[in-house]
Amino acid sequence: MTPELIALDWGSSRLRGWLLGADGVVLAARSSEAGASTLGGDAAGFAQALQALAGDWRAAAPQAPLLACGMVGSAHGWREAPYLPCPAPLQVLAGACVAVPLADGGVLHIVPGVCQPAQGHAAPDVMRGEETQVAGLLQQQPALAECATLVLPGTHSKWVAVRSGSITGLATHMTGELYALLRGHSVLARLMPAADAGFDEAAFVQGVQQAMRADAAGLGQLLFGVRTRGLFGQLAPQALADHLSGLLIGSELRDALRAADATAPLCLLGEPALCARYALALAQCGRTVTSAAADVAAAGLWALAQQGLR
Amino acid sequence: MTPELIALDWGSSRLRGWLLGADGVVLAARSSEAGASTLGGDAAGFAQALQALAGDWRAAAPQAPLLACGMVGSAHGWREAPYLPCPAPLQVLAGACVAVPLADGGVLHIVPGVCQPAQGHAAPDVMRGEETQVAGLLQQQPALAECATLVLPGTHSKWVAVRSGSITGLATHMTGELYALLRGHSVLARLMPAADAGFDEAAFVQGVQQAMRADAAGLGQLLFGVRTRGLFGQLAPQALADHLSGLLIGSELRDALRAADATAPLCLLGEPALCARYALALAQCGRTVTSAAADVAAAGLWALAQQGLR
Repeated sequence: MTPELIALDWGSSRLRGWLLGADGVVLAARSSEAGASTLGGDAAGFAQALQALAGDWRAAAPQAPLLACGMVGSAHGWREAPYLPCPAPLQVLAGACVAVPLADGGVLHIVPGVCQPAQGHAAPDVMRGEETQVAGLLQQQPALAECATLVLPGTHSKWVAVRSGSITGLATHMTGELYALLRGHSVLARLMPAADAGFDEAAFVQGVQQAMRADAAGLGQLLFGVRTRGLFGQLAPQALADHLSGLLIGSELRDALRAADATAPLCLLGEPALCARYALALAQCGRTVTSAAADVAAAGLWALAQQGLR
Repeated sequence: MTPELIALDWGSSRLRGWLLGADGVVLAARSSEAGASTLGGDAAGFAQALQALAGDWRAAAPQAPLLACGMVGSAHGWREAPYLPCPAPLQVLAGACVAVPLADGGVLHIVPGVCQPAQGHAAPDVMRGEETQVAGLLQQQPALAECATLVLPGTHSKWVAVRSGSITGLATHMTGELYALLRGHSVLARLMPAADAGFDEAAFVQGVQQAMRADAAGLGQLLFGVRTRGLFGQLAPQALADHLSGLLIGSELRDALRAADATAPLCLLGEPALCARYALALAQCGRTVTSAAADVAAAGLWALAQQGLR
């Protein structure tokens, strides 16, 4: 099959590439450690990393365009692809890709991130890379393009509102990063075994339910409860990390659902074990949710390329 | 003047001692690095640290009782002084001190901590050392004993409700610890200069006001705004740490004031620069607050000793 696109998900810590044929079929896949933040913003370093990962693909299929998403397009990446403000229709996103001329005459197209401009008192919000995941999900599940709330859990969880094929809003919750900081470096960590045991569903659900109550304390107070429940023996040491996870995810869901359109179907997109936690947490407040494939970056890059690159 | 009490504030990281005369007058003060968490729970280590700090005081004034508060009475201290549940009248607190016999025939009395037992779904809460600060404050400002909400900002901020000479409730907010984790180790820190510049009041107040709004986003989302306001140049790099501080303190105040008795006068007790931040933040919602002396541990130990030790 003839290669039709060289697709790159070029994040902070990793570079992944796919050689895609007709209909976006994956002909080959590779990855390297040449993440954007490891390359120090040096154009020569990016060019070298691209050549190392995909030089033979390019030589064999010189007609295939190159399309990349992720931190490669940040201010500290290869070339900045400025954020496109919401509402951002997916075809506009494709048309706003930034073209980086390569030394050999080729061109690398970079997908812009998407921003929610500041609204009154609220700070702006941004995502870069996730817009391509969204494009991939909508390619796989076109019914969601009309109206959906997409949840991409992770270090910085993204809540993305989609209406009529546009990204109409986004909100970031620092849930995963707070978990890592508190699990690794806080007073709460002192009561926890260094290694995680198996998932303690009961302790997790207790945390979710506590955070979701209408009369719940604020997060800074809820968190101290991890310590006291440990001190008083209400939870075993090996249950505390999952209880902490439940408090943080429950807080995110309470706050995000308050702001989200209650009529929009919810869809989770991300690492399966983490999505399973979110689905379990959502079930505590009676919300059903569908889960998509864990990784739809290649599908998203294919979908955007089909909209026509500049 | 004859020494009448050897008072010790024996925290996790530091041991402070005072030789007190009539009416609690400070005759001498010392401190050492022999905090409870540095001594590894070993009784011999505690005894040695006591001898090093106060051996000559004890030899010169063998009749003076020894009274200590703080982590020395925790499960990992010298001897556990179990938490006294709220409501905890101060004279009951004094009477509940645990007596540790010393090898030379003397006795060390240890002030118990105070706990808020679990209530329904809510986790229990605890403090140890702060109950003595409260006793010192009420000694200095007796009018507060009738009805007050005392705020002790810090790594773990304590909100203490006082009614008719009793500690009737307490709540811990992990504000200071969250600040240290986020300032030192998070993605937010990457945009901040390593060293703090002078206090940026405007950036702090903006954070407080944003967190205190009735329609404020949740904390995990508000925090990401520190990054985006930096990315979009809405705040200068040297303003971001104070903005973060404002978001965290504003969130604490919003949540704690919602739970507190609105008619009780507020009083701040702690490190002056931090108390000034809290007073400034409280002024944003029209609340006046008095501030007490920064350190009333010696006064508190004196006050408790006057209630009569067992």
